[in-house]
Amino acid sequence: MKFNVFSELEFEAATAGTLILNIHALRTPSQTILEESFNIDPYIKFEEIVSVEGNRLVRFEVNDPGSIKVNYKALVDNCIKVTDHSTSQEASLMHLDRSILPYLYPSRYCQSDKLYRLAHNLFGEIDSPFKQVMALTEWITNNVQYLSGSTNVETSAFDTVTEQQGVCRDFAHLGIALCRALTIPARYFTGYAYLLQPPDFHACFEAYVGGEWTFFDATRLIPLNGMVKIAGGRDAADTALANIFGDITLNTINVGCDLAESQFDPIYYFPDYMSGLSYPV
Amino acid sequence: MKFNVFSELEFEAATAGTLILNIHALRTPSQTILEESFNIDPYIKFEEIVSVEGNRLVRFEVNDPGSIKVNYKALVDNCIKVTDHSTSQEASLMHLDRSILPYLYPSRYCQSDKLYRLAHNLFGEIDSPFKQVMALTEWITNNVQYLSGSTNVETSAFDTVTEQQGVCRDFAHLGIALCRALTIPARYFTGYAYLLQPPDFHACFEAYVGGEWTFFDATRLIPLNGMVKIAGGRDAADTALANIFGDITLNTINVGCDLAESQFDPIYYFPDYMSGLSYPV
Amino acid sequence: MKFNVFSELEFEAATAGTLILNIHALRTPSQTILEESFNIDPYIKFEEIVSVEGNRLVRFEVNDPGSIKVNYKALVDNCIKVTDHSTSQEASLMHLDRSILPYLYPSRYCQSDKLYRLAHNLFGEIDSPFKQVMALTEWITNNVQYLSGSTNVETSAFDTVTEQQGVCRDFAHLGIALCRALTIPARYFTGYAYLLQPPDFHACFEAYVGGEWTFFDATRLIPLNGMVKIAGGRDAADTALANIFGDITLNTINVGCDLAESQFDPIYYFPDYMSGLSYPV
Amino acid sequence: MKFNVFSELEFEAATAGTLILNIHALRTPSQTILEESFNIDPYIKFEEIVSVEGNRLVRFEVNDPGSIKVNYKALVDNCIKVTDHSTSQEASLMHLDRSILPYLYPSRYCQSDKLYRLAHNLFGEIDSPFKQVMALTEWITNNVQYLSGSTNVETSAFDTVTEQQGVCRDFAHLGIALCRALTIPARYFTGYAYLLQPPDFHACFEAYVGGEWTFFDATRLIPLNGMVKIAGGRDAADTALANIFGDITLNTINVGCDLAESQFDPIYYFPDYMSGLSYPV
Repeated sequence: MKFNVFSELEFEAATAGTLILNIHALRTPSQTILEESFNIDPYIKFEEIVSVEGNRLVRFEVNDPGSIKVNYKALVDNCIKVTDHSTSQEASLMHLDRSILPYLYPSRYCQSDKLYRLAHNLFGEIDSPFKQVMALTEWITNNVQYLSGSTNVETSAFDTVTEQQGVCRDFAHLGIALCRALTIPARYFTGYAYLLQPPDFHACFEAYVGGEWTFFDATRLIPLNGMVKIAGGRDAADTALANIFGDITLNTINVGCDLAESQFDPIYYFPDYMSGLSYPV
Repeated sequence: MKFNVFSELEFEAATAGTLILNIHALRTPSQTILEESFNIDPYIKFEEIVSVEGNRLVRFEVNDPGSIKVNYKALVDNCIKVTDHSTSQEASLMHLDRSILPYLYPSRYCQSDKLYRLAHNLFGEIDSPFKQVMALTEWITNNVQYLSGSTNVETSAFDTVTEQQGVCRDFAHLGIALCRALTIPARYFTGYAYLLQPPDFHACFEAYVGGEWTFFDATRLIPLNGMVKIAGGRDAADTALANIFGDITLNTINVGCDLAESQFDPIYYFPDYMSGLSYPV
Repeated sequence: MKFNVFSELEFEAATAGTLILNIHALRTPSQTILEESFNIDPYIKFEEIVSVEGNRLVRFEVNDPGSIKVNYKALVDNCIKVTDHSTSQEASLMHLDRSILPYLYPSRYCQSDKLYRLAHNLFGEIDSPFKQVMALTEWITNNVQYLSGSTNVETSAFDTVTEQQGVCRDFAHLGIALCRALTIPARYFTGYAYLLQPPDFHACFEAYVGGEWTFFDATRLIPLNGMVKIAGGRDAADTALANIFGDITLNTINVGCDLAESQFDPIYYFPDYMSGLSYPV
Repeated sequence: MKFNVFSELEFEAATAGTLILNIHALRTPSQTILEESFNIDPYIKFEEIVSVEGNRLVRFEVNDPGSIKVNYKALVDNCIKVTDHSTSQEASLMHLDRSILPYLYPSRYCQSDKLYRLAHNLFGEIDSPFKQVMALTEWITNNVQYLSGSTNVETSAFDTVTEQQGVCRDFAHLGIALCRALTIPARYFTGYAYLLQPPDFHACFEAYVGGEWTFFDATRLIPLNGMVKIAGGRDAADTALANIFGDITLNTINVGCDLAESQFDPIYYFPDYMSGLSYPV
């Protein structure tokens, strides 16, 4: 599918400082960047670096106080993959690639060590990892209310279990923490989202089942095949859209994701569905 | 019912200090103390005071380092009351006695303010407060595992929701917090417990429904009519068996509760039961 | 001192519900209410009750959706007391009145059990309880930043120790928790505050030293003798200005406290001051 | 320096499961493994993998219930480096290698985002990053009490700030969290420790100052140059000595680290010291 995506961020710098942004669409064999532009106004020389997780960061120094506008645009062609998980077994811990192991461990916002008993009480009896993730995603959808502004940057999965409210970030963190508590590797996934209302950056998660990083979104706000991936990581700490060092404030965010071809067949999961969608990397 | 109860506490004082104990059986119109003795060895003059909640405290100063043995024994005759709650309505907040209001508010170990959404998601649709408390008690029984030593004196209801393990104290705190989140007054209840294995002090809770402080025990470790009440309060902070000031350690606890008559018909709640048991005060 | 105080609260009721307000100035031997009026618009019959802590509550039912304006005004004559604490000793736990004991225990927002080591590391060596409270109040003033909107109704003393920001409520909770961790009884104090900018309800705390409930305010926003007391309790859970049951929102608060006589000599504590101010009850 | 190190772990498997151990001494240009042996009794085929952080993991499957003994021994020759930090400046965020960026972000046990204000209040005014880390390490030493068994695997830096007790793991987590809050990259460091009493695995931390991963140990239990490095990572979640999947219990740990040459000149930091020790990798 082809998508036109863009984001405009407006910062106000009170002092000099450094910004590290993570808003570029990921460049992978299955996600091709056909066109792309990135501008900073007023002009600042920037460096593009690739994070240890493989995400595309932009880093630049702000030397003067004042307003800074950042503008990113891209035409992206990505493809998704649908895998039948009817026979997917629990991942053998003996054969997990070393790059996947970190996604089994607790992280800042996904304290899976504290959710062990809860996860096993709720989903421990389910006999396939794909069904477990489907079940926990549905449980989040049914129990957590999407409520703009109800949480903040310190809110973690441990809080959300009980507070039962949050935004996409919180839904994703809880999904990841529950997966890891069940010994299913899981990671955070940020992107541009087609049909998201109101338009914004979106966060979902991937669980490693049947040898695939399978995509899940407990918010049910968008079709599963409508994402343009920006970044993957353990949780929001790894994939912040902006890491700000210095007294600089992010004032406005304007984001968009439009279809760049004529047809789109939305994909959703339904109960008892045994096929999983993935964004291959 | 008549019960012989006793408790023996052994403290080791490294320095001088003050102890406030709350191990005396409550004296109420429906719980008569037929015989009672309280000794401290070596002898220390003590004062008996009644707490603001009406509990019987014993206070004394330890002037010398060393071992202190406290021994309490009583023969208690108490009676319980069974009330049909088929038609019990939600308590009118307009008519709640002022003495009951504090049991609506969050306390140290029962952060009902943080469990509001969870309580309403799980039990908000249930149409009678008695059924709500029955349901939440059963939910705790089914989801929290009784595990000696799994929690400590800082563990609160907010933790137990997610950690799903604990001892009687934690079961009671969670029950109370869920009740209060549903605007049902609830309080902590400590006592000597008949048939508790291994013998120990026990903690349960009361919810104010249908004009009665109705008794609940999510641990299901004892028959509901087997308690000799020691104390009531907002949570364990109000009803600690020993408040210790100074470098004094409680080393051993030995507790017992035996039937002092020939027959005992145990009472348990069952699903769909609409009668509640209370210990009138 | 004579003060004119007033408060206007505007609620919006989406459904029927019950309100319990705690905005009346306390009536005590040393705080005389010379004139007073309380109105609800549209008119609703209300009941005045006295809480178990002795605070003046107003309770009424809202039967119809819509806007409700509450208006309270009073002319109050209060007097404060100044006590020399040069020789005040640690309170003997043997002689504390039973009404004071609850203020030694941890409560919802003042988890003194968790701050024991911190309190003793910072203030344990100080040799008089008055100096300890002076020192901890100053420590809060120096380390916690007053920042409107930085905290919410779930923020507790345990959070504030580390987050080091908050509003008057958080300053008071931390002061109370530190006192209790040092075995100094402490309680929450709400009131109308003269010279507070911007005008608002204010929260401070009292510590029981030298046989007096001595007044402290770590925010240093007002002169210590400028309060008209509304309520005392363990923490904000006991003394909420409005307990709301039902889908009713408190939209606006308008508060004032003006001097009703010609002269006012502000009192502040200074380092090494050994006199404490109290609002006798 | 040459050290003989060993560790013996005894597991009891109730069911089949998988173990991932991280007890091998790291192999780096400056830490040479002269001799090494690793045995599992009864014999189980194992795989050695290198984690994404570069640590040496051993992974094996336990197929049968029963006791498993693991034995690791090595003769290691490592060297440390001493760097003068008198003129070390704040790291330029523009020039930090991408491999260092993750050590700026909060992690499971090091919630630097929550300690921002505390870190800046305490150490923000200090004018060199080396002095900041020296100061915060000393602050931890002075304020946190080393107390075996006082914390557990869920305890995090946020807890330790207030609870002020813990073991080496907690001292390291707090050091890391404070560094990151000051925008100083910091990571967890586990190893075999010479002269540690009682012998055990040890945990410390490294802060990235003056272009070096400089070594710090707030416990002050060992000479700084007495470590044989096992692993580095964001916190204990990345570097667990044993990740256990299945119902397998680690029952006993026996660890040792002896000098394998005749002389050892212990190095400690002292106040106002401006030289830092590092274990080059």
